[in-house]
Order: sequence, then structure tokens, then C-alpha cells
Amino acid sequence: MENSDDGLRLVLRIDFPPGNRLGHGKIRLMELIAETGSISAAGRAMDMSYRRAWLLVDALNNMFDLPVVESQRGGKQGGGAALTEFGTSLLHTYRTMQKKLDQAVKSEVDWLEKNRRQ
Amino acid sequence: MENSDDGLRLVLRIDFPPGNRLGHGKIRLMELIAETGSISAAGRAMDMSYRRAWLLVDALNNMFDLPVVESQRGGKQGGGAALTEFGTSLLHTYRTMQKKLDQAVKSEVDWLEKNRRQ
Repeated sequence: MENSDDGLRLVLRIDFPPGNRLGHGKIRLMELIAETGSISAAGRAMDMSYRRAWLLVDALNNMFDLPVVESQRGGKQGGGAALTEFGTSLLHTYRTMQKKLDQAVKSEVDWLEKNRRQ
Repeated sequence: MENSDDGLRLVLRIDFPPGNRLGHGKIRLMELIAETGSISAAGRAMDMSYRRAWLLVDALNNMFDLPVVESQRGGKQGGGAALTEFGTSLLHTYRTMQKKLDQAVKSEVDWLEKNRRQ
């Protein structure tokens, strides 16, 4: 029910003090890099400039001990990009958290859904 | 461990399609209204203008069938504000969700904490 198009949606963000965050934006970008093999194509799919997409990837790559996205420079198409093994694990971990969140608070979401103005 | 000052922090947002959101900002404002009895004092404590605080309260009051914040106009101090009974329940529900979230994803938070760059 809470996953229907106009139903409530739970959005998880993880704050990495002092200033970093991991949330839907970076996760969606990672998913799109995995799908498209390209930082610029992933950014375009999210209506963001290449510069902004690149800055998000740079932030991701500096948040952990291991890099999250690897890019190959050069080549006819200007090189491609892919998630590293660690990046794939990170994506999987975030999805697991989202799933556990959805399951853990079902009754509260039902209460909110019942009381929201339609 | 994940609640220490520089530890990871999970932040929950609930999207109410098409355009409303309930997250840390509105929840903190509700807490401060309950503490201070005033929308302007609550806003000041969050470094926001009275106008912005009032707009957030107005958004909250239009998201549910019942109002969340009630304000008394007039009086020497320009009237006060308080959470309604429903607002108090809403605050309690959000805190319950946050607690259940923290408990449900402990192992994933530990994994992130282990892999983050310190």
C-alpha cells in the first residue's frame, strides 16, 4: 500500500559527520552509472550537469576507504565508468537498509496514511 | 556507537505525494514549539525567519485531516502556540519510527562505519 504511486514513501539518508551525506540522490546516481556505464549519461538521466554528477562521484569516492566508482579515461567515447566491487556492496547495503526500514515501520506508515489529508 | 557525536546518523524522511515531506526540519520545529510555546521562538532556535517557521507550520497543518499546531492569536505576547493532541501523536509516531529504524539496520550501520574513511 505505501508503495503505490501516491502512497507515502520512506526516504533514508545517512549523515557522515562532519559534512557528508548518503541518500537517494547519490544512490540513484550509482544505480544509473551501473546501468549506463557512464557518469555523464547517469547525470543526464537525473537532469544534472556533468560537473554536478562528477562532484557527487568524487564525494562518494572520498567517503569510504575504498573507491565506489571507477572511471576509465580515454577511448573513443571518452571512457566509461562502473561501480567497484565495494560500490556494488554499498548499493546492496543501502537497499537492504531501505527494505528493513519499510518492514520495521509498517504500522506507523499505516497510521500516517490513515490520518493524512487526501 | 552510531549515536556518538561523529558517528553515522540515520535520518528519516517521509514523502507525502505529490509535494509534501515530513522530515527532521518539521519534526524539530514541532519539538521546539512544544518546548517554547511559540512559533517565532521555535523558528529563532532553528535560525529561521518567522515567515519560514509559519509556512512550515501551515504545511504541517494541511498535511493531515487534523491540525498539528494550534495558535492563540492576541494577548500581550501576541499569543502562543502548542501541539494539538494529534500533533503530539504525530511526534510520538515519528520518534517510534526513528527508533525502529535505528534498531532494524544496526548491522548495516556497523558495516558502513567500518568502511567509512575516518
